[in-house]
Amino acid sequence: MSARRRTRTGANIQGRAGGGAYNRGVRVTEIGEFGLIRELAAEFGIEYPPRPGGRQPGFAVGLGDDALVGERRDGAPVWTTDTLVEGVHFRRAWASWEDVGWKALAVNVSDIGAMGATPDAALVTLCLPDDAQVDDLRSLYRGMVQAAEAWGVRLGGGDLVRSPVFVITLALSGWAPLSATGMPLALTRSAARPGHAVAVTGTLGDSAAGLELLQRHGAPASATERRLMERHLRPRPPLGVARKAIEAGLRCAIDISDGLAQDMGHVARASAVGIRVEAARIPLSEALRKSYGARALGLALGGGEDYELALIGPRPALEALRSASGDPLTEIGEVLDYDGPRVAVVDENGREVAVGVGGWEHFRASGA
Amino acid sequence: MSARRRTRTGANIQGRAGGGAYNRGVRVTEIGEFGLIRELAAEFGIEYPPRPGGRQPGFAVGLGDDALVGERRDGAPVWTTDTLVEGVHFRRAWASWEDVGWKALAVNVSDIGAMGATPDAALVTLCLPDDAQVDDLRSLYRGMVQAAEAWGVRLGGGDLVRSPVFVITLALSGWAPLSATGMPLALTRSAARPGHAVAVTGTLGDSAAGLELLQRHGAPASATERRLMERHLRPRPPLGVARKAIEAGLRCAIDISDGLAQDMGHVARASAVGIRVEAARIPLSEALRKSYGARALGLALGGGEDYELALIGPRPALEALRSASGDPLTEIGEVLDYDGPRVAVVDENGREVAVGVGGWEHFRASGA
Repeated sequence: MSARRRTRTGANIQGRAGGGAYNRGVRVTEIGEFGLIRELAAEFGIEYPPRPGGRQPGFAVGLGDDALVGERRDGAPVWTTDTLVEGVHFRRAWASWEDVGWKALAVNVSDIGAMGATPDAALVTLCLPDDAQVDDLRSLYRGMVQAAEAWGVRLGGGDLVRSPVFVITLALSGWAPLSATGMPLALTRSAARPGHAVAVTGTLGDSAAGLELLQRHGAPASATERRLMERHLRPRPPLGVARKAIEAGLRCAIDISDGLAQDMGHVARASAVGIRVEAARIPLSEALRKSYGARALGLALGGGEDYELALIGPRPALEALRSASGDPLTEIGEVLDYDGPRVAVVDENGREVAVGVGGWEHFRASGA
Repeated sequence: MSARRRTRTGANIQGRAGGGAYNRGVRVTEIGEFGLIRELAAEFGIEYPPRPGGRQPGFAVGLGDDALVGERRDGAPVWTTDTLVEGVHFRRAWASWEDVGWKALAVNVSDIGAMGATPDAALVTLCLPDDAQVDDLRSLYRGMVQAAEAWGVRLGGGDLVRSPVFVITLALSGWAPLSATGMPLALTRSAARPGHAVAVTGTLGDSAAGLELLQRHGAPASATERRLMERHLRPRPPLGVARKAIEAGLRCAIDISDGLAQDMGHVARASAVGIRVEAARIPLSEALRKSYGARALGLALGGGEDYELALIGPRPALEALRSASGDPLTEIGEVLDYDGPRVAVVDENGREVAVGVGGWEHFRASGA
């Protein structure tokens, strides 16, 4: 119901954007904090300030009070948060505001999804420079609303503050299913055991290639380039697969956000196991192979921001998931006994491949 | 249990700070993202990366995975978020890092508390310039841990990103009680009705006076000044009163963060009522009267950041709350029939007083 409501409101908004309640060039300082909340709330179909007696769908107490109150659910609560800083995580030169909005929500959905949980309500914090444009922020929200509809998330308000730099922080809550005895069930990084197989959804490395292309020349020069750029700008975490993974008996997963090699390292450390990945089995898209040839593997292993899912578990459980979800799921390796939290990437002859690209880590002076 | 654990860990940390795992002057870029997480997690008593099989108290899945998983609770979920930007919300010149950490959590606790809900788990996002000092961040966390202990909040992790400016965002979740039929019970801004009385906890205006003193000369010149500054730097939202308010039958409240006049305006608009406040009844501290004389009332009405609670409801319910909580609760006005969402501040003769100071609104070019 709420998705339908949003779509209808979205249509109104597009009409208004044409007619123009605000012309391009209106800065946030001109309409003030409450004026801006009104504009942004309209993007997700909510009246602000709320009409007395009005009610925001899906919330017991919605936008406009001190805090949001949701409805009681039967699961265990799940929380995550992720932040995009202009100039660090995105650049206006090559990401549209709608793309930024989409991605801000998608990366959080990926974290909740990687636990096998279902995302629920999002809080949005915008740190805005004084010259931020109202229309840009409405575009940002439009992208966020599109992502919210795609994954059934409710946008619930948040915080607006002045800042010298543009920062978007999303905090996303969700619900994990419960066992028959009422215990939370989740996919964690720490449940890999020797003998388990490692499988991934989708293809890897596309996002890193897309980022490189965006940085190099902004607009796509071909349909292939467009596809790779899209993978970077509009990630689509496979939420459906993750949800079914728990039912299929899986208990270990991680979203591939830092680069496959580094993310496998997280699992190896958390589970105290080794992991062997067979390079030749890593799924690469046609677009990536075509554009990047021999470099494709390095991007898949070290590039990051794929927001695909790595699932680790007994082969029968992975098989059950493959049948249940119908989505492609590629086995790429296996879990080994502990000999240090080691990730080995091997070629077809079992020889270890040098992983050229390190994963992503913030703050290292020497790093990205 | 978790509070005790933290205290014990806190003692260890102080020992370490003396011995010095890191000397003053170590920048975040020198120890990297994961090194920094390890340092900060230690401040709230958590090992990072988590030991395989280790478990963070109060979480089904704790720090170190894609998302946090809490334990199932019987209430309805409540969420809020609030952000402090350096140079906008605090300045290192007059706020210690511990104070900033305390306040970052306290302002969120205030929002959850104002709903009559109980805070639970916090996610912390730090946007850090490259020259941020590890020891400063540990102090920041020390302040946050102190506040977390004061209100029984669990710190659960969050996000660390690079940024040109220092930003702290906290997202706090909590639980609202349920009615006998399983519906969420909350104190909202929209439940004021004509005939209700308006009461406030504590004293108002101290925080605004403290801010002015901090801006004027940083260090306190007297015990009185110290008290006012403390009110600004270390707000203590009255969580206990708020929790009992629902049991006492109250359904309307707001935390006093934008200034009493503006916050009463929020209630008037949300409830479609008028509100009359009797200026002479507004509780002012001795410290404020002594230091500010005739200006004290303006600070109480318009200053903001008191993080006290305004409770609105039938007099018998307020009386019941007063008996149950034992805390001072001062009746300052009453709710009137709707004639526009008007807030009138009147003197002892019923004549309207001009409210000299507007409340706080971000982004208005003309405003603060």
